[in-house]
Amino acid sequence: MKTVTQLGPGRPRLEPRRRAGQTPRAEILDAAAELFTGHGYGNTSTRAVADAVGIRQASLYHHFASKDDILDALLGETVSAPLELAGKLAGRAEPAAVRLYALAWFDVSQLCASRWNLGALYLLPELRSDRFARFRERRDELRGHYETLSAAVIAEAGAAAGSPAGSAVPGAELLPFRLVESVIDMRSDEGAAPEYAEQLIPDAILRLLCWTGSLAETRSAALELAAQFPAEQE
Amino acid sequence: MKTVTQLGPGRPRLEPRRRAGQTPRAEILDAAAELFTGHGYGNTSTRAVADAVGIRQASLYHHFASKDDILDALLGETVSAPLELAGKLAGRAEPAAVRLYALAWFDVSQLCASRWNLGALYLLPELRSDRFARFRERRDELRGHYETLSAAVIAEAGAAAGSPAGSAVPGAELLPFRLVESVIDMRSDEGAAPEYAEQLIPDAILRLLCWTGSLAETRSAALELAAQFPAEQE
Repeated sequence: MKTVTQLGPGRPRLEPRRRAGQTPRAEILDAAAELFTGHGYGNTSTRAVADAVGIRQASLYHHFASKDDILDALLGETVSAPLELAGKLAGRAEPAAVRLYALAWFDVSQLCASRWNLGALYLLPELRSDRFARFRERRDELRGHYETLSAAVIAEAGAAAGSPAGSAVPGAELLPFRLVESVIDMRSDEGAAPEYAEQLIPDAILRLLCWTGSLAETRSAALELAAQFPAEQE
Repeated sequence: MKTVTQLGPGRPRLEPRRRAGQTPRAEILDAAAELFTGHGYGNTSTRAVADAVGIRQASLYHHFASKDDILDALLGETVSAPLELAGKLAGRAEPAAVRLYALAWFDVSQLCASRWNLGALYLLPELRSDRFARFRERRDELRGHYETLSAAVIAEAGAAAGSPAGSAVPGAELLPFRLVESVIDMRSDEGAAPEYAEQLIPDAILRLLCWTGSLAETRSAALELAAQFPAEQE
C-alpha cells in the first residue's frame, strides 16, 4: 500500500523521501541495493526501485537507462576504492607483507562497511554477459594485484627462511583474494558484518603464505600506510 | 521455438527427452540447475523448467510442489555427501590433520564434479526464508564440523611445536570452510571447475592453521581414509 503525499506544488510523489542518500542518484542506488540483495535481482523491477525511493519510473530513467546500469554502478562501488589503493601501493617501497596487509585490511573493511552486502551479487549469472565485461575486467585487475603482492610475500618469506622458494604451497598466491571475498559469505551467513574479520583475514593471509614475521608490527605498519591514502570521494 | 514430437500413443511431449538424468525427477533437477545457475533463480519459472525437460508443467508438479522445493533438493545435494563423510570422520582415530584434509579434499572435489555450479545459489536472498531453514541448519552443521576439526589441527600443531596455543591466529578455525567454498567463486570466475583446487585448497588449509608436518604424507593418508567411505547412492 502506498501513501500519496502532496509535498507542495507540482506532481505528488508516491511516498515521502526516506532514503539516506544526499542526491536522487544515491537514493536510487541505496534502494536498488536493498532490493537486489534482499529480494533478488531477477525479482526486482525498476518500477519497484522507483516506488521504494518514492519517485516515478520516468524520473529513475533520467538517472539510469536500465536495471543493469544500476547493478553496474553498485558493483563498481565494491571494487573502485580497493583498486585505487592497490594501484598506489604497487609503487611503494614497503615490504610486500605490509602492502598486502594494508590492501586486505582496507578491502575487508569496505566490504563490511557498505550498507548492503553487495558482494552477494557477484555470482549472478547476469554478470557473465557483455554488459558487465568492464566490471569483470576491473575485478580481475584487483585479483591480479592480490596475486602479485602475494607472490612477493611468498618470495620475501622464502628469503627470510633461507630457501629460494619458501614453504608456501604452489598456487597459494591465488587464495588471499578469495579469503578477502569470503567476508561476503560470512556477512550473509551471520546476518551482519563480522567485526573480527578485518583483523582475522589479513592475519590469516600472511600465515597462509608462510610468512613468519611479527603480525602486530606488520598490522601497525599496514594501517599507517593505508591511512596515507584516504579514498577519493566519488 | 519448441518442436512438438509425437512419441507414440498418448499426449505429445513438447520436446524429446535430452537430459542425462535416468529418472524424470533427475531430469527436472538437471534442467532446473542449468536454468537457476545460468539464467537466474528469479528469472526462471517452473514452466521454463518443464519446457527444458520436455514435459508438461502438471507432470513437473507431480514431482515438486514448487520452485522452492526444486531449489531445496538441489541445495541439499551440495551438503549431504560431505556432511555424511564429516559424521563418519568425527569418530575416527586418525590425526585431525588427516581427517580435515580428507573432508576438504572430498568437498572441493564434489563441488567441482557437479554438472552445474550449485554453490553459486548459496547467496540467494530466498535462502533466508523459513522454507530453507533446514538447509541452512545442515550447512551450519557442516561448517561446525570444519571448525571442530580445524581447532583440533591447531591444537596438534601447537603441541608439536611445544607451545600450548600453537602459532595460528585467533579465529583461524573459522576459515577452512570458507576456503573450501571459495572453489565456487573460482569456478564461476574461470567458467570451469579449477582442477588444481582439490590439492591446493586442502594444502593451504593446513598451512593457514600453521600445521608444519609433511603435506605429501598427510594427503596420501587422507585420500586413503576418504576412499574407505564411498558416498551412499541417493
